[in-house]
Amino acid sequence: MLKKILGGVTAAQGYSAAGISCGIRKKGRPDLALVFSELPAQAAGVFTTNKVKAAPVVISQERVKEAVTRGVLINSGIANACVGAAGFSAALAISQSLAQYLKVKTEEILLASTGVIGVPLPTEQIVAAIPALVDGLSTTGGEAAAHAIMTTDTYAKEWAVELKNGVKIGGMAKGSGMIQPNMATMLSVITTDAQLDQGVLQELLQKAVKKTFNRITVDGDTSTNDSLFLLANGASGKVLKSGDELEEFYAGLYEVCLQLAQMLVKDGEGATKFLAVRVSGARSEEEAEQAARAVANSNLVKTAFFGEDANWGRILAAVGYSGIDFLPEQVVISLGDLVVYSGEGIPFDETRASKILAEHEIGVTIDLKQGAAEAVVWTCDLSYDYVKINGSYRS
Amino acid sequence: MLKKILGGVTAAQGYSAAGISCGIRKKGRPDLALVFSELPAQAAGVFTTNKVKAAPVVISQERVKEAVTRGVLINSGIANACVGAAGFSAALAISQSLAQYLKVKTEEILLASTGVIGVPLPTEQIVAAIPALVDGLSTTGGEAAAHAIMTTDTYAKEWAVELKNGVKIGGMAKGSGMIQPNMATMLSVITTDAQLDQGVLQELLQKAVKKTFNRITVDGDTSTNDSLFLLANGASGKVLKSGDELEEFYAGLYEVCLQLAQMLVKDGEGATKFLAVRVSGARSEEEAEQAARAVANSNLVKTAFFGEDANWGRILAAVGYSGIDFLPEQVVISLGDLVVYSGEGIPFDETRASKILAEHEIGVTIDLKQGAAEAVVWTCDLSYDYVKINGSYRS
Repeated sequence: MLKKILGGVTAAQGYSAAGISCGIRKKGRPDLALVFSELPAQAAGVFTTNKVKAAPVVISQERVKEAVTRGVLINSGIANACVGAAGFSAALAISQSLAQYLKVKTEEILLASTGVIGVPLPTEQIVAAIPALVDGLSTTGGEAAAHAIMTTDTYAKEWAVELKNGVKIGGMAKGSGMIQPNMATMLSVITTDAQLDQGVLQELLQKAVKKTFNRITVDGDTSTNDSLFLLANGASGKVLKSGDELEEFYAGLYEVCLQLAQMLVKDGEGATKFLAVRVSGARSEEEAEQAARAVANSNLVKTAFFGEDANWGRILAAVGYSGIDFLPEQVVISLGDLVVYSGEGIPFDETRASKILAEHEIGVTIDLKQGAAEAVVWTCDLSYDYVKINGSYRS
Repeated sequence: MLKKILGGVTAAQGYSAAGISCGIRKKGRPDLALVFSELPAQAAGVFTTNKVKAAPVVISQERVKEAVTRGVLINSGIANACVGAAGFSAALAISQSLAQYLKVKTEEILLASTGVIGVPLPTEQIVAAIPALVDGLSTTGGEAAAHAIMTTDTYAKEWAVELKNGVKIGGMAKGSGMIQPNMATMLSVITTDAQLDQGVLQELLQKAVKKTFNRITVDGDTSTNDSLFLLANGASGKVLKSGDELEEFYAGLYEVCLQLAQMLVKDGEGATKFLAVRVSGARSEEEAEQAARAVANSNLVKTAFFGEDANWGRILAAVGYSGIDFLPEQVVISLGDLVVYSGEGIPFDETRASKILAEHEIGVTIDLKQGAAEAVVWTCDLSYDYVKINGSYRS
């Protein structure tokens, strides 16, 4: 039903993008991205719940409520967070300069930054790069933009789909560490050529994020810069209003969010394993998520998977301290399709367990036998390289 | 006022202890410890809040409420957790056998286990070792017992003090990973020769634990086996009743708990740094603790300290997602006595920062400027060795 297509954030009609180097990151790495909509677009956004918010987050939270959006400007390398009033001045000056060059209103520009906290943004350097950035806009520029928003990411993250009615939805995302989005995500921009009411757009985005970006975690740290923007410019001529149309659109949006979110985890700092932690048989979806998140965030569980060790005791212990109510003697835990715990530790085929644990993607299922609700949280293992990457990030 | 003395859990009068190998751990490592009180002792205890509780925890929680206690038996290597009814049978059989040999009641024996979850306890092997264990009891046996309760610990943890009135309080503890005690702690036994009411003893223990064992964290994981026992046998002839006497006793108990708790963190799995995270200027002690705990449990903060990186942005971000209310622009963050953030990132002497970060013990202070309350949480850094130790624990 959903057709996977290429093009990422420029897959949908009426969008162009560019990604260039303006000199923030070392070795000429691309660090400045722009997504531009030919037509005024309705925009929706979700943002970090961290009390410490970067200047571009504060500004974009206001602007996303405006009537229309024309562009999203993202820099990597510096987070523009915790630098006081200077952060706001920089963000305002940069968006004003871009708006002038694009001949749109300043309020129609959304902003995001990612990188080191506490370092001032080199405003002049970015402003000076704007003409080249705008001149580089291309309807096939999604990939360049996806590259320019990377920090410790090892590959660019893009996904796009086409619905039966011809509507396209595509996006890009970045993120690899400091990932436990909470009502928000790492940086991500998703575009569609459908036309939807702003209120509906915001509602569908929040619904999709709840079950995708908000269900991933790399290290349990929620960033100061998480921002996800969804732009709908109507360039396809399709105006979505009926229940069926919106349902189909939601399915496509969910798919793009899910694929991008899972790519973030797969590229988690130092990750060697992709873990899908499913808690089933819960009394509510909230409890299932709470338990799955405790398991997914346990350093002991994550190091055990790195070591390919079938240490189900750590999984059960994490459910035990998650705060939900359950009976340990009723729980069933499986690694892949191999049951390793059923009310108590049971003998299992260690050779088969080793084979399952040697895989790159591993499903962990914890059946609480308390009800019918379930939730999946996606995470990665905790390796030497996570410590290495994060022991020397600033230097 | 408080005199530090030697002797650990056998420092106080009327206690003997032993630690031997019964063959649970490899290479003949000691794995069975007994602390014995010549006189019937009042006992207090705090235990893990994990919903998944080992059999010895469930049993000891009941027994500690009994009139008197005579002995505490601890094995290391196997946690006796999550093995169903067999775990209870094993714990009951072992304590019964020990009670018979000691000629005391089975209910007068407290139990604790630590080690791998999900593996059955070798009951016969332990029962067979009881005569040698009891014969080995000695009033200088505290150190042997402290060694026999170790798992991934790299050294035995003992502390003892003498009060002005001659009362002695001493204890031992074990723990190195799966440490975020919650109304309880890792395994620890503390003894005193003072005499106190059981209710008072329990109250003082809980008060001390709240500010010591419950203020440490290694990896945010709360274990299935956390148990702390406090025995008071009155062998010194001192009966403590007055406010002043109890206050002095509390000061000594607090000191022993604090020293043992800090030793756990210093010996945290793979730890190279001991971090004291102090949040001051909070509106309440609870909020101060909540913020300090978020910082102390952040993998990003912990890896930055391992890398000796003055990455205050991660510290502020962790306070930001801790759930407390504050204004980032009022916060002051110091590493040692070096201010690195004051409302915004400020220039600081990187050479001096490097010198502070190269120390083994580092104080981190976050002043919220919201009120007068404060709290300290102690933790360690996150190193390659944490990953190494925990990637291959079961094997």
